[in-house]
Amino acid sequence: MKQYDTEILSVGTELLLGHITNTDARDISEMLSKIGVNVRWHTVVGDNPERLAECVAIAKRRADVIITTGGLGPTCDDLTKQVLAESFGLKLTENAAEREGLYEYIRLGKRYTPNNLSQALLPEGCTVFHNRWGTAPGCAFEAEGKLVLMLPGPPNECVPMFREYAVPYLKKLSEEQIVSHAIRIFGIGESAVDDLFAQEMNAMANPSMAPYAKECDCLLQVTAKAGSEAEAEEMMAPVIRHVKERLGDYVYGMDVESIEEAVLPLLKERGLTFAAAESCTGGEIAKRITDIPGASAVFAGGCVTYTNEVKARLLGIDRELIETNGAVSEPVARLMAERVRALTGADLGVGVTGLAGPDGDGTHEVGTVFVSLAAEGRTWVRELHLGTFRTRSFIRRMAGNHAYDMLRRYLTGLPVCPQG
Amino acid sequence: MKQYDTEILSVGTELLLGHITNTDARDISEMLSKIGVNVRWHTVVGDNPERLAECVAIAKRRADVIITTGGLGPTCDDLTKQVLAESFGLKLTENAAEREGLYEYIRLGKRYTPNNLSQALLPEGCTVFHNRWGTAPGCAFEAEGKLVLMLPGPPNECVPMFREYAVPYLKKLSEEQIVSHAIRIFGIGESAVDDLFAQEMNAMANPSMAPYAKECDCLLQVTAKAGSEAEAEEMMAPVIRHVKERLGDYVYGMDVESIEEAVLPLLKERGLTFAAAESCTGGEIAKRITDIPGASAVFAGGCVTYTNEVKARLLGIDRELIETNGAVSEPVARLMAERVRALTGADLGVGVTGLAGPDGDGTHEVGTVFVSLAAEGRTWVRELHLGTFRTRSFIRRMAGNHAYDMLRRYLTGLPVCPQG
Repeated sequence: MKQYDTEILSVGTELLLGHITNTDARDISEMLSKIGVNVRWHTVVGDNPERLAECVAIAKRRADVIITTGGLGPTCDDLTKQVLAESFGLKLTENAAEREGLYEYIRLGKRYTPNNLSQALLPEGCTVFHNRWGTAPGCAFEAEGKLVLMLPGPPNECVPMFREYAVPYLKKLSEEQIVSHAIRIFGIGESAVDDLFAQEMNAMANPSMAPYAKECDCLLQVTAKAGSEAEAEEMMAPVIRHVKERLGDYVYGMDVESIEEAVLPLLKERGLTFAAAESCTGGEIAKRITDIPGASAVFAGGCVTYTNEVKARLLGIDRELIETNGAVSEPVARLMAERVRALTGADLGVGVTGLAGPDGDGTHEVGTVFVSLAAEGRTWVRELHLGTFRTRSFIRRMAGNHAYDMLRRYLTGLPVCPQG
Repeated sequence: MKQYDTEILSVGTELLLGHITNTDARDISEMLSKIGVNVRWHTVVGDNPERLAECVAIAKRRADVIITTGGLGPTCDDLTKQVLAESFGLKLTENAAEREGLYEYIRLGKRYTPNNLSQALLPEGCTVFHNRWGTAPGCAFEAEGKLVLMLPGPPNECVPMFREYAVPYLKKLSEEQIVSHAIRIFGIGESAVDDLFAQEMNAMANPSMAPYAKECDCLLQVTAKAGSEAEAEEMMAPVIRHVKERLGDYVYGMDVESIEEAVLPLLKERGLTFAAAESCTGGEIAKRITDIPGASAVFAGGCVTYTNEVKARLLGIDRELIETNGAVSEPVARLMAERVRALTGADLGVGVTGLAGPDGDGTHEVGTVFVSLAAEGRTWVRELHLGTFRTRSFIRRMAGNHAYDMLRRYLTGLPVCPQG
């Protein structure tokens, strides 16, 4: 199959000032890697026509597919469309349907700027990507043997537009189907996974397999190319089976974004709910599950008990017990999970107490965390030492991952604390 | 002053696969913009020596300063150092101090890989940036009229190293001092701020001023160049005063990252604490304040009451009252703030109930949110309609911003609900 070497060219001075993060490039890259398109370069350039033109010239030399994000809105004089059209010798012509849509938008009393209608100007002969999430349309055209796709910059427009229009558009280019699955792993690191499968991976071509590190877990990506999706799936099935057997209960899911995303359907299937009592994670566990639409079916709520006083007041944990054992202790973690379960009436309770740092408490090392899970009649506690050199955000996220891992193990009948 | 056109070149296939986000480029850009260094390009390339060498050649042609991130670790064969050294005709030589440090690391029983000691190989004559956050050292060198800085990729190493070594290193290059302040604004949008100051901004050169949008608020960046920091500050003082007067209580802080970061010291100074009862924000408010070290002095904790059942059980809100008014209502929001304040013994309570979507409840539009603040003897409630076309994460973040804005206004003696 022809390899489509792809460059993502993001236009926006705010990216270069560090005011916003280039999540568009990440999200587009992730979608492209799943359909087997090779992203070779990300480039960011400011709202400057000369420098943008130079970047386009470089992209034309090295890439087969150029995907731009940003610079399509009414306040930036449609910089990206003008420069790209000029570079490929195309005229910008007004698209009647898009112009109608923009009139409608203005009639609805939305903010009007003099440049608003210029958004209907598009390169002649292009395929229009209508923007249902904002005003600036995107488009695609082929010229000089290159494929160019233009998307607006705001992530809540760029990402759904790319998913809805650009992915099917690019998929049609390929005669072969590329299918990819991410096997998500928690409990062993990327380098250990690499060691485990290094020989096999080197010997594999199609399907292929590669490990990648995420912030607090890792994944093995398995990819196959074939004449049909079904064929590609068939080629991968034995590989995936083998990996799952080898890694056992370290595998928490496939093609999910996070461990909480794997836990949500497990709870739903079983008709169970959970609640959380959080000290050092301070709302991390609650926020992560409620980031997912539909969380209310499985998450009851919980308490953030950031001080000892509030541990006593909200959860009714005996002040003396806290004083004797310390807030960062096995008995306090145990009670937190049990009490939040009882108070909320949820089927399961999780509790977290620990030291996220940067300051210590004089007793424990930063990174000491107790994570607990309470079910009917039994409570488990994990004692973690996540490392004194880790950041506060790492420790909090990792503690959250352990809480979700304990839920996952409980729900799938695995030992909740395999190490003890 | 000489302009240092700067390129940030990030090396890592995982960035191109969308597995991780290029936060290094954002964070470095933000630090550089504050010292007046112009970042003109971000480039990302994979762990491939040929393509990296081509990117280095492009950067040498167009940039004065090249900053690389990533590709310094033991598992990537020190790709970045080798390619950069070769491109500038420099040898890699072993740094004795760094070699000692690596031996020490291995002696401490940390993971050893055969390539571990290769991290002590550095371009001849370079300035070494010792890595106290990990193992791979960074470095800087000047060659062929270009300045090259190399940093490791993991953000928890890259960012503190850049702050500690690279920023002072780059500051020394300039005879002029550049000082910049970000005036943070909540309650009116970037385009309105732009309209308000457009004429003045166009007429300004030094100091200069520009508005930028953040996810749920915006900022005005004021920058001055002068012979000394004090002089630059003096030049900016009247501009900042003028902006603050003009924008009034929309300004929530200067040089802070978020509205909660502005609220934390206000609470501390007054010796006050707050607690939060969260429904649709689901822990967002608690997580955001506890992301900041030292939050325990001002944040007591609170409840995530994601279901009506838990609103009744944890906060003691009458089930009938919820049924009559609906969970998304002014009276429920009011009681949430009052009850969490009473239950935790905090000085102030905030409450949030609303519809973050994507699904509606049949009664309210997605984006309908009630945010409340309870103090001794008085409670305020804001009713928000954040827009049906917004994402769940935007609505949750925006609701959180309103809660913190109400706290800020209360603490600084401003009207808590200026619109009603």
